[in-house]
Parts: sequence; structure tokens; C-alpha cells
Amino acid sequence: MIYTPKDKDYLTRVKESFDRQNFMSLINAKLIKTEPGFCEIHVPYNINITQQHSFFHAGIVGTVADNAAGYAAYSLMDKNSSILTVEFKLNLISPADGELLIGRSHVLKYGKTLTVCRSDVFVVKDGVEKICAASQSTLIELHNKTDH
Amino acid sequence: MIYTPKDKDYLTRVKESFDRQNFMSLINAKLIKTEPGFCEIHVPYNINITQQHSFFHAGIVGTVADNAAGYAAYSLMDKNSSILTVEFKLNLISPADGELLIGRSHVLKYGKTLTVCRSDVFVVKDGVEKICAASQSTLIELHNKTDH
Amino acid sequence: MIYTPKDKDYLTRVKESFDRQNFMSLINAKLIKTEPGFCEIHVPYNINITQQHSFFHAGIVGTVADNAAGYAAYSLMDKNSSILTVEFKLNLISPADGELLIGRSHVLKYGKTLTVCRSDVFVVKDGVEKICAASQSTLIELHNKTDH
Amino acid sequence: MIYTPKDKDYLTRVKESFDRQNFMSLINAKLIKTEPGFCEIHVPYNINITQQHSFFHAGIVGTVADNAAGYAAYSLMDKNSSILTVEFKLNLISPADGELLIGRSHVLKYGKTLTVCRSDVFVVKDGVEKICAASQSTLIELHNKTDH
Repeated sequence: MIYTPKDKDYLTRVKESFDRQNFMSLINAKLIKTEPGFCEIHVPYNINITQQHSFFHAGIVGTVADNAAGYAAYSLMDKNSSILTVEFKLNLISPADGELLIGRSHVLKYGKTLTVCRSDVFVVKDGVEKICAASQSTLIELHNKTDH
Repeated sequence: MIYTPKDKDYLTRVKESFDRQNFMSLINAKLIKTEPGFCEIHVPYNINITQQHSFFHAGIVGTVADNAAGYAAYSLMDKNSSILTVEFKLNLISPADGELLIGRSHVLKYGKTLTVCRSDVFVVKDGVEKICAASQSTLIELHNKTDH
Repeated sequence: MIYTPKDKDYLTRVKESFDRQNFMSLINAKLIKTEPGFCEIHVPYNINITQQHSFFHAGIVGTVADNAAGYAAYSLMDKNSSILTVEFKLNLISPADGELLIGRSHVLKYGKTLTVCRSDVFVVKDGVEKICAASQSTLIELHNKTDH
Repeated sequence: MIYTPKDKDYLTRVKESFDRQNFMSLINAKLIKTEPGFCEIHVPYNINITQQHSFFHAGIVGTVADNAAGYAAYSLMDKNSSILTVEFKLNLISPADGELLIGRSHVLKYGKTLTVCRSDVFVVKDGVEKICAASQSTLIELHNKTDH
């Protein structure tokens, strides 16, 4: 689906919000691509963000899915709006075993108040990308509320 | 609901698994209480795990809900079993604004293969505890698979 | 949790809305109890609403969970508001094998715009009640919109 | 994604299971298309399956999403297997206002035990098709269990 952003400076707005999330910097997450209604985030493997089998922790997988959804949705919002995740549901499909975690999210429906996104999380192992999780999220636009 | 654990050393098994999750130590998460079918995890506030408004990041909230569910379920499993989260759904109910995040999870149904848990996440601000998120999870027991 | 309804005639409002849902009458669903923030709905067994093993169809189980959540939330809303389900997640815990299906839902958080409910669905077999499903829902209040 | 079915008679198996669901016949649901890992189900409008605004009831929307997912998954399973829905999450995106409801589901991951599907539900009004709901489901394959 092709979306026309209401705010032509959506990219700056998304980047600034992402940069205000300290947790993104703690896990070395990078905002790789933002288009109207789409976002891609990468997190490189690090032993500090693992679970008991030394794979990426499910909490990191969920973080990547949720954040990609949030910024995919935020790219379409008014410049004076803030965004919150209402809820998300995540299926962990295969072990997040690899050197890089990639979250990609698409807006499925952008509404006046609520936006629905679908996200896929991929893990790259020895250069091969494989889906490891899938999520569906609901986001809310808070009009006339700053993001910080 | 009262559960009788199949493995009387469930507490040791849960603690050892928790300690193998490096991500728990990165965010300074503590396993506070484990009973058959119940688990409570605490994460103290830290500026490194925040989102753009300086509250706990939704990814941390999800992590706490998911991990509490995982160990609540794991407490009931066979000593030779491993556990994986199949999926979870999280509602973010109010801002995670406070000095401590508490995740509590109860097993709703322990099955031969699949287990369903409900988790609540609370935030403590100035000593007052308030619900900030609620989740429902499905976990799978992998029989005869070690946890590490 | 104890809720004080904003509309003292909430019971009439809930009943009238329920009665406007033709699907409830098709499956012979009954609104058994409505309290502020709570709702209970019953559906008797009928061979027409079954799946391939002659148990209640998952679609009926979902309907009962969703509708109980909707009316639990609606009981707390303004008299001039309408309600819509934003989303729900349902775990089917055991077969819905019995003579009566019971949905009970509690409001977990009533917000200005969004409300979160948890529902349990029970099946009664030979007089014994057993949980067969659990759900978590998000509802939206549409202010100044009539329900019909 | 292209799937190769393990049972070359998957179509017959899916049809027979669908026909054993009395609830499908009550709501006049039709199995329109089944391919390996895909299923499409139609339900024509009928005043008996409506909610308070005379649109398709959310319970019917959920039923169509869940059943399409179930048969998309079932098409890939062993001939001696039975299937159960573990859980599903449904976002209701816009009112199901129209003359026909269409559920389409794709298998995202077919696993030995668990399968994950994504479903879209569309409503057709005056001949124009529009998305009205989106879901994500987890299904379980019960090996060596008959479907009836």
C-alpha cells in the first residue's frame, strides 16, 4: 500500500524520536530505513542481550517488532502528534539464532485515532536471512501532544 | 489455583535458567519469587532502558511479562524439559513511569504440551504500585531437551 | 475492582444493545448478568453451532468472549457513547465439550478512549463447569455516537 | 511462499472437515478455495448474523478468520492428523458493512507441531472489496488423531 505522509519532515521526526529512546542505544539498535508507512530496524548480536541458549532474547525480538511498528505508524502521523503502543501480539516462529536481528513493519491501516501494523522479524545467520517472529500491533495517535 | 510441581527442585532449575539469560543481568532484573505456577520479576529504573518520554521502554515491559510467564510455566515442567514462548499478547495500559517495574505471572492452564499464562506488570512510583500492562502467553514444553 | 457507572441506567442500555444483535438471538445467547465492569453471557448447546467434533465452534467461543467483554466495558461508558471492539486475543484451552457455554468478562482498565477487558469462557458438562478459553480485549468508546 | 502438501488428497480432507462443521452451514459459509497453505471462505450477508448496527457481527468476522486459518494449515498436515486452534488475535479494522464477507488465510510457518497463519477479512459493499479485519493465529497438529 502507498501512503502519503501528512508531515513532509516525517523522517526527521522519526529519527529524533528514535534517538530519544535510550534503550535503542543500549542494545545498539539502528534505524535503517523509514518510508511512509514502513520502518526497518537492525540489532547486531551481542552476548548481553541473549536468553539461556545464547540466542537473541525474546524481549529483544519483541522490542524490535514493536519499535518498527511504532515508527512505521509514526511516519504517517501529524507533526504535532505523539504515539503510544496500545498492544501487540508476537509469535516467536523459530530461534533468533544469528548475527543480526532485523525488524520490518508495514502499516496495514492508518486511522484517525488507531493504526494497525504488521511486523516481521528476521534473523541473519552466516549471511542468510530467515523469519523468526511475526507480530500484529495497535498504535494510538495522541494529537497535539509532543513526543518528548 | 494450586499446582503441585513434578520436579521438587523446580526452584533451582528456574533460578539457573534465569541466571543463564544475560539480558536479565544487563537490565538488572531480579527473580524475586517463584512458586509452582507463579513467578515475580523486578526491574529497577535505569535511564538506559527508557523510551522517548524517559519511562520504561515497552520492550522492557514486554520482556518482564514474557519472562515472568516463562518461569511461572517452567516451574511446573519436568526436570528434563526445556521451555519456549510460542507467542504473547501485551496490552500497555498506562505509562510505565516509576522507579521499579514488577512482573507477576500465573499459570492459567498447564497442559502436556502447551501452557497458558496471564501476566500483570506494575510500576511503582513514590512507593505506590499501579498496573501498567497485562499480557496473555502461550508456552511450549520441549520434553527431554536441556535448557542450555 | 469496584467501578461506579457514569450512567445509572447502564443496565437498560446494555440490554437494549444486546437485544439489537440478531446474532445473539440466532445462537440463543442470554445476557445473564451485568454489573459495572462485568458481564456474563450464556449459550446453550445446539448442534447447529458446532465444529467437526460436535463441540461448540471456536467462533462461538470467541463470540461469547468478545461480547461479554464488550458489554462489561459498555456498562461503564457514557449514556451517549457507542462501543466497538478494537481487537481481541483468544486462547482455546480445552475442548468446548458440554451442554452450556458461559462467558464472563471483567474490565481491567476503563480509560477515556480505550478499555481493556479479560474474559474467561467456561463449558458446563454434566453440571460441572470447566474453563475452556481465555481472552484479552481492547474496546474503544465512541463519544456522542448512538449505539444503533 | 510455495508449500508442497504431504497428503495429495488434502482438498478432499479439508472439504470433508469443513462440511462436518454445522456452524458453517448455519451461517451459509462456503469454502471457495483451498491450496497448499491457503484457504478462502465466503459468508453472504444475512440479517441473522449481525450486531447492533446491522453489520456482520464481530463473532462472524472472527469465525471466518479462524476457520480460514485452520483450513490453510490443515491443507499441509498429514492425512492422519487432526487440527486445533491454539489461539488467535483479531484486529477489527473497519465496520463489516457489506453484502459479502471474505476470509483469506496464508500459512506463515508450517512446523512439526505448531503452525502460524495470517488472515485478512474483507467485506464487499456494492461490489467493492475492502479490508475489515486482520488476524494472526497459532494452530496445533495432532498426529494420528482423526478429525471426527
